[in-house]
Amino acid sequence: MSEMLAAVLHAKWDPKPEYKPSPRDIEGKLTYSGGLVWRYPELKLEKKKIPEPKDDEVLIRVRAVGICGSDIHMYESDEDGYILYPGLTAFPVVLGHEFSGEIVKVGKKAFNEKGKKLEVGEPVTAEEMIWCGYCKHCRSGFPNHCLNLEELGFTRDGAFAEYVVVPARVVWSIKEIVDKYGEERGFEAGALVEPTSVAYNGLFIRGGGFQPGAYVVVFGAGPIGLAAISLAKAAGAAKVIAIEIAEKRIELAKKVGADHVINPLKVDSVSDRILDLTNGEGADMYVEAAGAFDKTWPEMEKAIWNGESVNAKVIAIGRAVGHVPVWFEVFQVRRSQLIGSQGHSGHRIFPSVIRLMASGKIDMTKVITHRYKLEEILKAMEFVSKNKAETGKVMIKP
Amino acid sequence: MSEMLAAVLHAKWDPKPEYKPSPRDIEGKLTYSGGLVWRYPELKLEKKKIPEPKDDEVLIRVRAVGICGSDIHMYESDEDGYILYPGLTAFPVVLGHEFSGEIVKVGKKAFNEKGKKLEVGEPVTAEEMIWCGYCKHCRSGFPNHCLNLEELGFTRDGAFAEYVVVPARVVWSIKEIVDKYGEERGFEAGALVEPTSVAYNGLFIRGGGFQPGAYVVVFGAGPIGLAAISLAKAAGAAKVIAIEIAEKRIELAKKVGADHVINPLKVDSVSDRILDLTNGEGADMYVEAAGAFDKTWPEMEKAIWNGESVNAKVIAIGRAVGHVPVWFEVFQVRRSQLIGSQGHSGHRIFPSVIRLMASGKIDMTKVITHRYKLEEILKAMEFVSKNKAETGKVMIKP
Amino acid sequence: MSEMLAAVLHAKWDPKPEYKPSPRDIEGKLTYSGGLVWRYPELKLEKKKIPEPKDDEVLIRVRAVGICGSDIHMYESDEDGYILYPGLTAFPVVLGHEFSGEIVKVGKKAFNEKGKKLEVGEPVTAEEMIWCGYCKHCRSGFPNHCLNLEELGFTRDGAFAEYVVVPARVVWSIKEIVDKYGEERGFEAGALVEPTSVAYNGLFIRGGGFQPGAYVVVFGAGPIGLAAISLAKAAGAAKVIAIEIAEKRIELAKKVGADHVINPLKVDSVSDRILDLTNGEGADMYVEAAGAFDKTWPEMEKAIWNGESVNAKVIAIGRAVGHVPVWFEVFQVRRSQLIGSQGHSGHRIFPSVIRLMASGKIDMTKVITHRYKLEEILKAMEFVSKNKAETGKVMIKP
Amino acid sequence: MSEMLAAVLHAKWDPKPEYKPSPRDIEGKLTYSGGLVWRYPELKLEKKKIPEPKDDEVLIRVRAVGICGSDIHMYESDEDGYILYPGLTAFPVVLGHEFSGEIVKVGKKAFNEKGKKLEVGEPVTAEEMIWCGYCKHCRSGFPNHCLNLEELGFTRDGAFAEYVVVPARVVWSIKEIVDKYGEERGFEAGALVEPTSVAYNGLFIRGGGFQPGAYVVVFGAGPIGLAAISLAKAAGAAKVIAIEIAEKRIELAKKVGADHVINPLKVDSVSDRILDLTNGEGADMYVEAAGAFDKTWPEMEKAIWNGESVNAKVIAIGRAVGHVPVWFEVFQVRRSQLIGSQGHSGHRIFPSVIRLMASGKIDMTKVITHRYKLEEILKAMEFVSKNKAETGKVMIKP
Repeated sequence: MSEMLAAVLHAKWDPKPEYKPSPRDIEGKLTYSGGLVWRYPELKLEKKKIPEPKDDEVLIRVRAVGICGSDIHMYESDEDGYILYPGLTAFPVVLGHEFSGEIVKVGKKAFNEKGKKLEVGEPVTAEEMIWCGYCKHCRSGFPNHCLNLEELGFTRDGAFAEYVVVPARVVWSIKEIVDKYGEERGFEAGALVEPTSVAYNGLFIRGGGFQPGAYVVVFGAGPIGLAAISLAKAAGAAKVIAIEIAEKRIELAKKVGADHVINPLKVDSVSDRILDLTNGEGADMYVEAAGAFDKTWPEMEKAIWNGESVNAKVIAIGRAVGHVPVWFEVFQVRRSQLIGSQGHSGHRIFPSVIRLMASGKIDMTKVITHRYKLEEILKAMEFVSKNKAETGKVMIKP
Repeated sequence: MSEMLAAVLHAKWDPKPEYKPSPRDIEGKLTYSGGLVWRYPELKLEKKKIPEPKDDEVLIRVRAVGICGSDIHMYESDEDGYILYPGLTAFPVVLGHEFSGEIVKVGKKAFNEKGKKLEVGEPVTAEEMIWCGYCKHCRSGFPNHCLNLEELGFTRDGAFAEYVVVPARVVWSIKEIVDKYGEERGFEAGALVEPTSVAYNGLFIRGGGFQPGAYVVVFGAGPIGLAAISLAKAAGAAKVIAIEIAEKRIELAKKVGADHVINPLKVDSVSDRILDLTNGEGADMYVEAAGAFDKTWPEMEKAIWNGESVNAKVIAIGRAVGHVPVWFEVFQVRRSQLIGSQGHSGHRIFPSVIRLMASGKIDMTKVITHRYKLEEILKAMEFVSKNKAETGKVMIKP
Repeated sequence: MSEMLAAVLHAKWDPKPEYKPSPRDIEGKLTYSGGLVWRYPELKLEKKKIPEPKDDEVLIRVRAVGICGSDIHMYESDEDGYILYPGLTAFPVVLGHEFSGEIVKVGKKAFNEKGKKLEVGEPVTAEEMIWCGYCKHCRSGFPNHCLNLEELGFTRDGAFAEYVVVPARVVWSIKEIVDKYGEERGFEAGALVEPTSVAYNGLFIRGGGFQPGAYVVVFGAGPIGLAAISLAKAAGAAKVIAIEIAEKRIELAKKVGADHVINPLKVDSVSDRILDLTNGEGADMYVEAAGAFDKTWPEMEKAIWNGESVNAKVIAIGRAVGHVPVWFEVFQVRRSQLIGSQGHSGHRIFPSVIRLMASGKIDMTKVITHRYKLEEILKAMEFVSKNKAETGKVMIKP
Repeated sequence: MSEMLAAVLHAKWDPKPEYKPSPRDIEGKLTYSGGLVWRYPELKLEKKKIPEPKDDEVLIRVRAVGICGSDIHMYESDEDGYILYPGLTAFPVVLGHEFSGEIVKVGKKAFNEKGKKLEVGEPVTAEEMIWCGYCKHCRSGFPNHCLNLEELGFTRDGAFAEYVVVPARVVWSIKEIVDKYGEERGFEAGALVEPTSVAYNGLFIRGGGFQPGAYVVVFGAGPIGLAAISLAKAAGAAKVIAIEIAEKRIELAKKVGADHVINPLKVDSVSDRILDLTNGEGADMYVEAAGAFDKTWPEMEKAIWNGESVNAKVIAIGRAVGHVPVWFEVFQVRRSQLIGSQGHSGHRIFPSVIRLMASGKIDMTKVITHRYKLEEILKAMEFVSKNKAETGKVMIKP
């Protein structure tokens, strides 16, 4: 049997007039500005040849793969038919990058974390960002800013499939997790390592963490925000306050550890409410996981300004287009800082998240609200696209 | 009623021949080298005048006060009659410094954390180190290294008494804790803020913390070690391993969060056992809270050298006399560091510990094994002196 | 002789309609919103009684005092007669806070950095911010954010006078500087410790410094910007690029170490020029010392976005009213951060700046462009007010 | 012409009885314990085939290469004929790893720092540590602790030759340096990037640097110590104090920036002298570059203990066998830390050192005391072996 089922995204290369090719764009094939170029996206469930791993790669049988907001944004299009996802893309491509599985074939030079040959049967997950390892940022320990990035499920075939090939250097064993939770929940947890790592990078690597006992506010309780809530709680936040509108997500926020959830639709002032809940201090860390700085930043700015805390860190993880008015004085008078975060690779992030899951300090499987078979992927994508606010994480089980 | 009950330590100024006065020693009264000077200690329960707070001080009615190892070391003497405690002391003095209580009298210029006048009735605790606030280390944010230190219960009257006077600048409200736990347990928790802060300083301020998901090893499960275990767990350690001999303390270590306890008397090699429990990596943080570097350091050295981790921090909190052989190469090849820690003041330590307690993230009252009335203090001291290994924290309730 | 010459600022308490009293304002006397309250400022050279130091204070004979931009902003008024300075003020007050001098009288409890009594004759400078030492921010090591701040030359009598009284805890010896440079230049250098410390705080304490070999861009070459240039150079910046319009200040920027100065009036694009000068990387640190974020931020944003560096820190030291549009994505994709800085106290800042001056690593006396006698202070203020762009630092020598 | 001149070290695989093979040792070929295995070393100047670069490698024509202490330790043997160098080695091998040159051949996938193909003619230097890029430490940004390390001039052919092949990922352009200094001195400077980076790693990456204005003490003025002195000075140390015995090296220490040099043979107490020179404070950073902890640590311990500073960092860069007695209390009472450092890769070290050289902030060519032709390499090695104390850096110019 040499064929497999895979969900492939096709789209037409048809640049908008305002498209300016990046020096790294490849005409007709790859662009750093997806939304300006790709038109009429179509996701098809196809039979494909099972890929063959190169020397430094492994073939993985996918056991669980989550649907990410980015997947939906490549699948959805605007009124002119252009995909919503603005970034690095090369179509046609098998989507899917939040996954786990077991190794079924190992390239000749495919080594594990300990420098030994990877083995068939090992339960693993993988980073989505395939960093090159030789550009100056990779050499310097900043793989999330690799100059030659490939992305699994964006520019090379991903994991909405029965099998996926990835370079060994981005593969991490989740044996400890599977041992603890069993295969069913273990592989699901493993598929959640990647999005949890995005939050981990923001809070602990880029953000440098907080003193245990801190107050943490998380804007947005989508999957990244939920991971941020869970991690903040696990890392010793005395209070975690989530800001969220959707009822389902409010419920999930509480489930993973939010001490309070503020629904902006139900209070006069989010910032005042934050101050109430923090004895007038304001938070020590504000995490933006909503991708709506025009709405979230003004509340953070007021909470910081009107509070007494002089330790506030603002961590920007969400993504949004456009400029937002900022009053710099807030950073000066309240001794605060704004830190942007991107990616999930390097810095011991994946192994730390794996340890947190294996120890039971965090359990991200709580945020899974729906499960589908790979055969049902089109239905699943359609469902998520139409019911975002009703979903936590939707998991595909091939 | 102007008198109160207080346990006063008396001793004779009778320097040993090897005593060299420090430039800051005051002949006949105060020394930085207690054990070389003070002889024939005697703890007496006495009637004393209730002290009067100065302008920048408050009078506190003591509600709970713990017995610290230092108290015992001032109470105990060696075969020549000299006290065991080696440090800063001025006798006679009322002992006791791990306490909480309620304010009963407020000096004219006694302000709280927010810069407002302190109020009668406020439940509070206080730092033991009365830092001056004007020497270069205080000015620079390092009050634990104050050049003009006074110490509550060592050089000025402490809290083994019905009342105690302290400067307002070292007082912190524990209202949040008392609100949560009620008066009985709330004041006990409040009396544990100080020793917990000693551990907090070591792990998070001096040590800079660890990445959530880290493995942490704590040597010694006395009160400081138990606080370290509890804090490490609360701050996201994936595994906390305690090293302890005494059965009672092994039990307490598990109670406050140790995932594993190694009893050195029952294993061939502590370091091998650490490596077993950490998948051959070794720990990310080693906390010395045993005050026995001659025994603990060799195990740490071996665990670091034989493990694969290149992130080890060794935090020295325990105190011990004498030099210990160290192989510097371990710090180089395994990319590790040794960090000493002293004190509990400054750096947002007290308010962070208070928040952690008030939120329920840590509950140090679990380590209280015995409770006595102030009238029974002599009995309590005697008991602790003779049964160290059987006690967690012993609490005096005036 | 018990009288002295002093330059006193008088103004009328006449709040604008939009004035909202801060909880800490004192009606008729002190406000946190100077520009909304104080009208018709008038600086008068007067005879005043030489002040008497309290127990914890010293009396200093002023030997040199610089004119700061804030002094000018209290002296100048808008079209309605309100002072331009927006902050904490209590009039009438003797202005002047960037000073040095020699101690002539010592309070009973006025101790130096080593905890010993200060001595008559000691050459000293002092912090301008009289932090309380007991509010939570002071206790935590953040005196620049003291909740009970008094400010020398703003809310209590400053150093545009023959004598000034300050609390011992903000006094620092400059003996090493005077020994090296002699009295004439030594006291001038001493008067420059305070503004240099403002830059030091921004670059090294709040900003956390940069890796030696970094590229640093400083916007604005007023006295703070010039200090930033000088410090960046001394701390190992491989290239320091200043952005400045005024010819005199361009000249001073080069004098203190700028490798390049970009005059925005003479280039098409400041950000493009920065990229040219940094091999297309952009800078590792951008220092805003111009107080014009609406003009400077867009250039920083472009330089960061279009450059390859993923290490940019933006340090906001300058002050300006109003919101500025910010694109958060820049902080994410380019792994950068925005950090606000205020003040000059604590964190070993003053003693470090003093050491840098005493060692000759920096020589801020190079930025002194004019010198006046105290008798000429009104003329000096008038001159600076009318010729800002022509001045570096203007020094008053009583 | 397909042959080149190269200095090859031959030795006999003849393990001592106490040799225990490491799991990574390869019988007869490679060992992690050089000094226990390799006997009768012989350096021969030979004709060898010019090597061919693989796809991800480049061929470099060597223009300058320094003799490192490690080269000498592989060349020298003990009384039983075993080499003195204790570490990772695989013989026969061309020695030499501190080099620069120009690219003459480029593999198909040999990319530069910007991710573009490397070009013939580019002046470059290279890291000596050939980190794998895929083990957990490499993935986490710690290439100096690579689990699969190869070392240029130790386990694969190095640069005591006319040509050398290295993987592109460890190659860095020194065009900026050559442009500034010209080819003659530029390539020499380029060959000094590697040893300078060893010091840079210790002081700024592992050590985290110091506040500008700090006092820095460097033990040992061999090439690494001289680089440490030079870097400390460039990074804003107010005073740099070197400790050295050899007259020639004392002279070089002053030449590269030491403000004071203490010769232990000429003072009663090194630690007392350090305290004299630092106003009784002691240093903020102590750098061990002597590889003699048994002699240097006691002086550091005394200086820290008897000084007032509570900021001391001890950076261990030198290597030495054996345990040394350490008093842990020094780290606690004086708030100090001990940090080990190894290697020179990653963390933006090489590019930062290159920028520092290109800007003229440091000029390490000052430490070159002797120059030889490649044909004279045997003579040069012999000379260094017999006259260590008389040499700074000895440079081979093929």
